[in-house]
Amino acid sequence: MKHIRVAIIGATGYTSLETIRWLLKHPNVTITYLASRKQEQPISELFPELLGRIQLPIAPFDIDAIKKAADAAFLCLPHVAAMEHVPPLLDAGLKVIDLSADYRLKDAASYEKWYKHAHSDVKNLSAAVYGLPEFFAAEIKNARFVSNPGCYPTAAALGIAPLLQAGLVETSDIIINAASGISGAGRTPSPQHHFPERNETYEPYAIGSHRHAPEIQQTLETISGNPVQLLFVPHLIPMDRGILETIYLKPRSAVTLDDAINAYERAYSGKPFVRLRLNNLPGTKYVANTNFADIAVKLYNGRFVVVSAIDNMVKGAAGQAIENMNLMFGLPETAGLL
Amino acid sequence: MKHIRVAIIGATGYTSLETIRWLLKHPNVTITYLASRKQEQPISELFPELLGRIQLPIAPFDIDAIKKAADAAFLCLPHVAAMEHVPPLLDAGLKVIDLSADYRLKDAASYEKWYKHAHSDVKNLSAAVYGLPEFFAAEIKNARFVSNPGCYPTAAALGIAPLLQAGLVETSDIIINAASGISGAGRTPSPQHHFPERNETYEPYAIGSHRHAPEIQQTLETISGNPVQLLFVPHLIPMDRGILETIYLKPRSAVTLDDAINAYERAYSGKPFVRLRLNNLPGTKYVANTNFADIAVKLYNGRFVVVSAIDNMVKGAAGQAIENMNLMFGLPETAGLL
Amino acid sequence: MKHIRVAIIGATGYTSLETIRWLLKHPNVTITYLASRKQEQPISELFPELLGRIQLPIAPFDIDAIKKAADAAFLCLPHVAAMEHVPPLLDAGLKVIDLSADYRLKDAASYEKWYKHAHSDVKNLSAAVYGLPEFFAAEIKNARFVSNPGCYPTAAALGIAPLLQAGLVETSDIIINAASGISGAGRTPSPQHHFPERNETYEPYAIGSHRHAPEIQQTLETISGNPVQLLFVPHLIPMDRGILETIYLKPRSAVTLDDAINAYERAYSGKPFVRLRLNNLPGTKYVANTNFADIAVKLYNGRFVVVSAIDNMVKGAAGQAIENMNLMFGLPETAGLL
Amino acid sequence: MKHIRVAIIGATGYTSLETIRWLLKHPNVTITYLASRKQEQPISELFPELLGRIQLPIAPFDIDAIKKAADAAFLCLPHVAAMEHVPPLLDAGLKVIDLSADYRLKDAASYEKWYKHAHSDVKNLSAAVYGLPEFFAAEIKNARFVSNPGCYPTAAALGIAPLLQAGLVETSDIIINAASGISGAGRTPSPQHHFPERNETYEPYAIGSHRHAPEIQQTLETISGNPVQLLFVPHLIPMDRGILETIYLKPRSAVTLDDAINAYERAYSGKPFVRLRLNNLPGTKYVANTNFADIAVKLYNGRFVVVSAIDNMVKGAAGQAIENMNLMFGLPETAGLL
Repeated sequence: MKHIRVAIIGATGYTSLETIRWLLKHPNVTITYLASRKQEQPISELFPELLGRIQLPIAPFDIDAIKKAADAAFLCLPHVAAMEHVPPLLDAGLKVIDLSADYRLKDAASYEKWYKHAHSDVKNLSAAVYGLPEFFAAEIKNARFVSNPGCYPTAAALGIAPLLQAGLVETSDIIINAASGISGAGRTPSPQHHFPERNETYEPYAIGSHRHAPEIQQTLETISGNPVQLLFVPHLIPMDRGILETIYLKPRSAVTLDDAINAYERAYSGKPFVRLRLNNLPGTKYVANTNFADIAVKLYNGRFVVVSAIDNMVKGAAGQAIENMNLMFGLPETAGLL
Repeated sequence: MKHIRVAIIGATGYTSLETIRWLLKHPNVTITYLASRKQEQPISELFPELLGRIQLPIAPFDIDAIKKAADAAFLCLPHVAAMEHVPPLLDAGLKVIDLSADYRLKDAASYEKWYKHAHSDVKNLSAAVYGLPEFFAAEIKNARFVSNPGCYPTAAALGIAPLLQAGLVETSDIIINAASGISGAGRTPSPQHHFPERNETYEPYAIGSHRHAPEIQQTLETISGNPVQLLFVPHLIPMDRGILETIYLKPRSAVTLDDAINAYERAYSGKPFVRLRLNNLPGTKYVANTNFADIAVKLYNGRFVVVSAIDNMVKGAAGQAIENMNLMFGLPETAGLL
Repeated sequence: MKHIRVAIIGATGYTSLETIRWLLKHPNVTITYLASRKQEQPISELFPELLGRIQLPIAPFDIDAIKKAADAAFLCLPHVAAMEHVPPLLDAGLKVIDLSADYRLKDAASYEKWYKHAHSDVKNLSAAVYGLPEFFAAEIKNARFVSNPGCYPTAAALGIAPLLQAGLVETSDIIINAASGISGAGRTPSPQHHFPERNETYEPYAIGSHRHAPEIQQTLETISGNPVQLLFVPHLIPMDRGILETIYLKPRSAVTLDDAINAYERAYSGKPFVRLRLNNLPGTKYVANTNFADIAVKLYNGRFVVVSAIDNMVKGAAGQAIENMNLMFGLPETAGLL
Repeated sequence: MKHIRVAIIGATGYTSLETIRWLLKHPNVTITYLASRKQEQPISELFPELLGRIQLPIAPFDIDAIKKAADAAFLCLPHVAAMEHVPPLLDAGLKVIDLSADYRLKDAASYEKWYKHAHSDVKNLSAAVYGLPEFFAAEIKNARFVSNPGCYPTAAALGIAPLLQAGLVETSDIIINAASGISGAGRTPSPQHHFPERNETYEPYAIGSHRHAPEIQQTLETISGNPVQLLFVPHLIPMDRGILETIYLKPRSAVTLDDAINAYERAYSGKPFVRLRLNNLPGTKYVANTNFADIAVKLYNGRFVVVSAIDNMVKGAAGQAIENMNLMFGLPETAGLL
């Protein structure tokens, strides 16, 4: 049985925890290296749920040791930090999956505009494959370096791309009303995500300024081959995990609901992690702790209303990263994920 | 000091509880009658939080007793039941505020279409004043009978009407993405609102079929004088109370963000319960347990994004009902509500 | 590889859903039969999260069909219903794991007292093995019929038994302050578990009258060989899953904290699902969605304070049931559970 | 009508917010001064719910200005900071209510032991009246300086003191299993109170080391006149507000449940904020956003199980502080609190 030795770089955040949690159940994987600058305590004290499940120490980022220990690396670092670590890992011959935002926007100028930092690794930026398997599986299978999509962009692309691809909707009138559980904000405490501030409330944030908007736009333009204009308005929900996007699209003339359903069925035929909900609506609970994306579409007063739901930590981060690893190493796409 | 004796008809639901809670603090009110067919237990066992705060028994709907006991009646009944009780109360000379949906849609045919029940009190249907004080205060002050607006329609009307009134936005391209806490579903247990089904999840429901859509449309058409077309898509949030609507509107040519802000400031000048948020965004927590409606507006990629938040149980139900009572009895609009 | 064909009897409740969820990932299991009287809809509409993951219809309880289809049966029925179905399943030669309470209390009179129903299957009541693997693995390995412990009793027994076994604490002064997430209340809607009643509140219930108290007492007496007296006071927590019990025990003369820790280490050496927390305290989040029981012990003002946490749906129900199945079929205890 | 001008010292925390919220509704109070070292923004941006409700700037602690502006001061500062501000306020002639822990433990050595800081104001420490009105109303009425009790200690003292006072229970066998919503942890973000860490979990903390244990002990010893020994074990509940304590007490020989109920009825006759629940059990939801304390008592297997619930922010902090102010100024105890 094929076996992959995995290093986790940036071991102390939520995407790391989620990646470890899933990889511990993956039949073809052993975690062999945990790297972080913060190494005061064993991983099982940092994440009490891991007690007794993984004995590895947290070690510094020692490229020679990693090269010996691992075949693949998952980067669970914040942006900017990620692009400092990708080149040595690739040079050491590892296959690399980057869960940060550093290699998602293909245009270095756009990266600098949205992330307020010059891109320091433009060479690999252009080489990076965008890891959305439903649309880029062929490239991912041959890739040494995959940039894992953002959580909101995954749900948005899966919900919108089939209709754009099939030419069924206007490209300049796309409204994405998105909502996320709080794990999406990461593990660093902040006033906005302090429990008593975030519990029992619902509110939008970052209207017009969220970094996932240009990523969604780029992905939709890549898939459809056309310029796209969209509004992306995210909200916070008082729950741990889950993203659900309610997307408003304008059908082109004479397009029917059946046309839309057919487009989804064509696009996702044989894709193991997209589920069309024809008889009920998606909810975040039905995808929680799974790698599924659930999608429904309705026609209402002249608009398609598309609902797309994922677990932000799984299909929106760690699960999709493992799905990409599976493809990069010739494993079944679903290995360790069902 | 002016004093009002109040009867609550339909005392066992959440709107009743919320009305009682607020009226107990109202300096001009005494609750004198609690009517319900369900009268097995004292109100303080039904609602344990009322222990020691109200001693009234729950009594049958005895119109003679109510006529003697009360000057005003709040109907906290479900729809259909409400319209059976309104005529005797009005005939008995009480001022009546109906919190049900029975008198909101002015057209009996529309009522029958959406509520699947013929309207049995068409005479009072046309007499009922729609109790949205920010737009109909003059009529409310002279009314003997007020139909209290729905929760979603209150937030929608307050968020949209000023822009329509001022002619700043297209009337046929209005998208209302709404979300509500679970108290909005009422006090009757159901599989969908069972705690483990509703906790830790976010999902849309009733796309294209929610009864508040025609009410919103009617209110906006009444205020603006023009036909309106809209999408209304509600969602459920795992929290007790609060409604927040994110509304997408298309500005007419040459309309600016300042135009929009000016329209809101004009519309709500002197209105004590609408707060414009110019420096931050509304959230349901900031209006919880208050009668305020918080509104913000942004211009983003060619759309106005309006955010409107209320407490569904207060400005969306009991608080607005008391606000209407205040106006009907010549009290300050804010009496008992700040 | 050994393969087990499993029937789920009583397919429409939460313990069924949790059992299915875990068995779908079990390398040695195929679910072959889903039985229920309620069969109006496919299992994936009943439990939307199962969409695309299991295609079986829900069928009536046809013992001949079940005999052909399955090697083992999990009973996920309510009490009373369970004991009607156990005899035919055993007669048909299946190995049976009953997740209901019907075979937990070994004394039929005690069963009748607490469950208000005469026991109709006394023969199998005495034959049933109590499925707490940490203490009864030898019997479970040879059993054809296992009664799966209650959720609260599992956490209580694991927390208390080692200290009683080692004779370190008084047997007549045991206080169990327990708390559970709401999934423990089952899937049937009720006023007490309606979301707005249960959210944002914490409260005790059933003081002195909870059916798990005699089960805990019986288990502790069986393991320790001595009469035991205890208080068991359960509370509800506004969350989906998890049980945590804070247990107050009186050390016998001269007993130290080290004695207690040693007793736990001896009792749980080689037991894969009990984790002693020496450096931090258990919390329900750290065991959520796992089969682990986490235990800590402190000495404070002359008492041992023991903290014992499990996921009520996993180690407290479906996970422990599968652990029992593993033992009954000679599989590794952890198969499909890590 | 008697009028009180109030200064809030330390305006940026949750106890300040809660005090402001209640004082804005108090018929005899005007808030005239908000002091804090952190003054970057208006109070209505710091606390968005206050938008439009209070126009005061946040100002430095200027004792001359405060002396002119206010008759009473509420100290909402953290401990240590509070005792630096009390002397000048008392010297300026204000009546002072300190919501911090600085003046609760009457023994300076005990303060230093538990709070790791020498007490700098021993003179006022001995003068401070402990502001638990149910037991010390006479002293409070004559006090110029009141130390407001801690949240856990308020619930504990109200639940236990009547039984100790009446000599009905053992003084050396008191177990307090306490649980609190997260607002009790204050407004400063921390890893433990980050939403995703605190949501959907229940866990104990600070076993044997919580600072409220000695405060509870001192209060019970003061009221009963006897030495007391107790265990206090706090837990965190994923909700905003509320404390509920489940208290295990050993009845003295021949003491009955009726004796206990009589003791509570005697102790709380005429006390407006304590409610005995004879027919159901307390829950935090039933006291949320009120100044009530709800108490029930059961006799179970030889123990009294007492359940005591308050809102930690109201009866456990701001509400009780206002109750104390009412008494200090000769107002009805309930003014502004019902």
